[in-house]
Parts: sequence; structure tokens; C-alpha cells
Amino acid sequence: MTLAYVGTPFAGWQIQPGQPTVQGVIEGVLARMLDEPARLAGAGRTDAGVHALGQVASFTTGRAIPLEGLRRGLNARLPETIRLMAAEDVPDGFHARSDARAKDYCYRMSRAEVVLPFAAPFVTPVHGRLDVGAMSEAARRFAGRHDFTSFCPADSAIEDRRRTIQSSTLREAGDEIVYEVRGEGFLRHMVRTIAGTLVEVGRGRIRPEEVDAILAARDRRRAGPCAPARGLVLVRVVYGDAPLEVPA
Amino acid sequence: MTLAYVGTPFAGWQIQPGQPTVQGVIEGVLARMLDEPARLAGAGRTDAGVHALGQVASFTTGRAIPLEGLRRGLNARLPETIRLMAAEDVPDGFHARSDARAKDYCYRMSRAEVVLPFAAPFVTPVHGRLDVGAMSEAARRFAGRHDFTSFCPADSAIEDRRRTIQSSTLREAGDEIVYEVRGEGFLRHMVRTIAGTLVEVGRGRIRPEEVDAILAARDRRRAGPCAPARGLVLVRVVYGDAPLEVPA
Repeated sequence: MTLAYVGTPFAGWQIQPGQPTVQGVIEGVLARMLDEPARLAGAGRTDAGVHALGQVASFTTGRAIPLEGLRRGLNARLPETIRLMAAEDVPDGFHARSDARAKDYCYRMSRAEVVLPFAAPFVTPVHGRLDVGAMSEAARRFAGRHDFTSFCPADSAIEDRRRTIQSSTLREAGDEIVYEVRGEGFLRHMVRTIAGTLVEVGRGRIRPEEVDAILAARDRRRAGPCAPARGLVLVRVVYGDAPLEVPA
Repeated sequence: MTLAYVGTPFAGWQIQPGQPTVQGVIEGVLARMLDEPARLAGAGRTDAGVHALGQVASFTTGRAIPLEGLRRGLNARLPETIRLMAAEDVPDGFHARSDARAKDYCYRMSRAEVVLPFAAPFVTPVHGRLDVGAMSEAARRFAGRHDFTSFCPADSAIEDRRRTIQSSTLREAGDEIVYEVRGEGFLRHMVRTIAGTLVEVGRGRIRPEEVDAILAARDRRRAGPCAPARGLVLVRVVYGDAPLEVPA
């Protein structure tokens, strides 16, 4: 299932007792539709307030359910903040997370003096002077394989914090600054901490070439703050055999 | 004050006791900021669920209040669904409604199989085959000065239902169909009933050239249904001396 959702009203993707989560809402609706428990495997665990244009989740059912009926039935029962955009049958053993080759995330910042209320839930306002050229140069330095210890919470239980980033670019679009990243995998808060660090570069508090040293330091205190969840969207999950452009 | 708002959570612009209205919320915040009652004159009374990119409202106060302080103070206290985009001082006697020369409205329809949750509050889904060329031809026929009795509620208390439409056009934009209209004034439900009629034209139930007869009939039953509020946005209110392109 390819899913889009507005993250604002949810405590993230992953099911948590007593909290409204995207996974919890969908599993509840699916269980009623299928009349059997449904357990989703999601490609990425988006945090509270993070949005998705193309989250992917898989599940196994014994029911013979037409894909079109699944799509219509789910969308009729889901809140308007979650939509099943597309559904397909997959081979036995497919798993949305472990079979994902890469994920594309996008982080949107707005330089507008007043952000329109239509856009406000999806962008982080950034005020004052920002050197977008320096931000863009810093963004490129994240591409490649690095230890991202400086860009995940200090108390992370993950041991191996090396990850490969296929592309990492920043551009201006109208009064927005858009950071786009493709990676094989991401640590918790990693994209948001990169975004927060890029804002520090824009403000002149970190030089673009310092990114290499911050990565090498493997020290969370060296990077910038974790940027707000509202600016982040999981754009796409990549599957299959197509080559991922790995930077030199 | 130029105001943008998401209409979804509000029972329309106009203040109503016990209901959340845009005017009511802003007047409440203003009264607390100014420490005196504030009464807004709004350019257009948008209905429940209708959005605004450029609503205009004026008010009179004895306080000397810097415009920048008004903007920051209001936006800090207003819900995120309402934003004061700009504020300016106006001559004594200015009134946002009676001084308005024209208003631009836009009605968005989406032909997407599944509308993204980000767009859903702002578009009306339209499914099935639609003849957009016929809709576009029908749209143009509303330009000019007409009696719009067929396009307002049958129980309307307004006596003179003649209004002048400066421009009335329909276009495709991606998977959306966008109807844009500029008029010196509008009756209640008028734009939405035009939009509902254009959908009937798209479906082949009304021929484009029938629009003239429907207008001439001055009979609400002849026009199409009033389209849902969510697709409508008040884009702009026009003031000043610039000529409005009046169609031949």
C-alpha cells in the first residue's frame, strides 16, 4: 500500500497504546474490513508530526480482497488525513521495510514574512538572513557513506550508525528553501538534525566545510538542533533493481 | 487588514453567537489587544467552510497602534488557521465592503482518483467523464451583467439580483479544473451554484448555450446544485481606481 498522510494529528507512524498513530488507525480500519487482525509493516517510522506523500506498508491476509475494493473501502473509512493512494499484490515474503532500497525525504523551510495558513502545517518558518549558497554547499557534503552519530539522539540504542546517502541537495523554490535527501536508511531525527544544521550554516554559525569535521566527531553536541517535525515529509520509498545514483 | 484563512473549522466569516467564526475570533483577539471593543467590516461574507487567500477587513480604533505590532501581535494570538498577511492605515470613512470594487473567487475541482490529504480540504473531487471544453464555454457565458436569481437560494431576501461579472473562465491545471471569476458583487451561494452548474455541463446534462436560458429563467430549479464549500476560495478584493476589465 502506498499511503499519504498529514502527520499533524498523529503521534507518528508506529502503533502506541492510547495514542493516535497512523499505523494504529489503519490497522483498526483494516481489521474491521477484513474481519481478522491486520499487522502492517511500514517502510519508515515517521515521527510525530512528520508527513508522508509515499509511505509504503505491506501486510499479509488470507482473504481474497480485490485491490480496488481495498482502496475504496479503506479510503471510505479512514480519516481524511490518511489516504491509500495505491495498492498492489506483492510476492510472498515481501516486507515493506526490509525490501526498501532507499527513501526520499524532503524538508521545507519558508522565508515568507507570514506563512499562508494553507502551507503552515507543512513548512518550518525561517526568518532573518540566510546564506543559501553556503547551505547548499553544506548539504552536498552529507552525500556518501558516513557515521551519523552526530546527527542522531545521543541516547540512541542503534550500534552501527553508518548510513549511505545517495543524494543530498538544497534549492530555493519561491520563498521556500527545500532540502531533498535520498538514503538507503536513516537514523531517528537524522534528516531533521541535518536540516537544523543547514540552518546554522545559513546563519553563518557553522561553515559548510565544517560538516566533514562534525560527521567525523561522532558527537551529537557538534551538530545543529533537530528541526521541527512539520517541515519533513517522506516523499517516496524505492524498491526493485534500478540503480540508485551513488555519488562518487 | 488582508487576511488568509482555512475555512474548514469555521461557521463562515460573519459573527454568530455560540459559533466559531473568523470574524468572531479576530474581533475577540483584537479586543484583548486593544483593550476596547473592535468591530470588523469584512469585504465578503464567506460561508461556512469557504477559504480566503485575500479577505479584507477594516476597523476603526482610537489607539495609535503600529502596523507591524498589529500584525505580529494578532498572528501570535490567532489560531494558525487565520493569518493577518498585511495591514495598512486607510483614510477615515474607508469601509472594506462598500469600497470594494470587485472580488476574485476561485473554485477548485480535482479529477484525481484519490485526492492527496494535503489538498483534500481545498478541492472538490469530481469523478467520471467531464467535457472540460464545454465547461469552459459555459463559464464564459456568465460574464456580463445578468439577473442571477437562478443562482442564489430561492428564499433569498435580496430584491435586486442583477450583478456584473467582469470575467469568468475555467481552465485545467494538472489534475485540477479551476474556475476563476471576478465580479463587482456576488449573491449568496452564487459562485458555488455556477460551479455546480458547470459540472452538470461537463457531464453533458446541460449544454453550454443553455446557460443563457437558465439565467433568463430566473428560476433556481433550472441551475445545477450548489457545489461544496471546500472548493471555494476568496482570492482577492480589488480597491482603487484601476479599470476592471469589463467584457464586451
